[in-house]
Amino acid sequence: MFDFVSAIGGLAAILTTVSFVPQVIQSYRTRDLSGVSLTMYSIFTTGIGLWLVYGVFKQDWPLILANSITFCLAGTMLFLKIQQSIKK
Amino acid sequence: MFDFVSAIGGLAAILTTVSFVPQVIQSYRTRDLSGVSLTMYSIFTTGIGLWLVYGVFKQDWPLILANSITFCLAGTMLFLKIQQSIKK
Repeated sequence: MFDFVSAIGGLAAILTTVSFVPQVIQSYRTRDLSGVSLTMYSIFTTGIGLWLVYGVFKQDWPLILANSITFCLAGTMLFLKIQQSIKK
Repeated sequence: MFDFVSAIGGLAAILTTVSFVPQVIQSYRTRDLSGVSLTMYSIFTTGIGLWLVYGVFKQDWPLILANSITFCLAGTMLFLKIQQSIKK
């Protein structure tokens, strides 16, 4: 039972982390970020950064790993969005 | 020390949850979802749904609360994006 629950948690972590990959690829290729909220990615990237700090304090490796990847992906989205906002 | 770390975790949870509010408001108002990835929100909403199931199994109320809210917000984004995709 414990392993089943852990598997759900693990799958949840993988999906929420991996989900940003198609968004980054689409945004990088098309450079179309008009519908993407700058405020969202500013707050979200900060939040993921704090999850990472929390993981480091807790020495929780799955938390550190998942949030490091998400931080890079969300950070890339934020960078692309700021870049587009400056150009306009 | 424990309280400080818990505060970081709590703030992280609040920020990552709340971050989707400006995205949903912007998308609802403008109906501009061209730059938003359908694949991202499909995978992300599924992942958050699994986090919710995980929280229910663990009887972890902060996890249940945060993921219920995020599930509704991400689900709204997914709905708006599918709606826009059908119209095209």
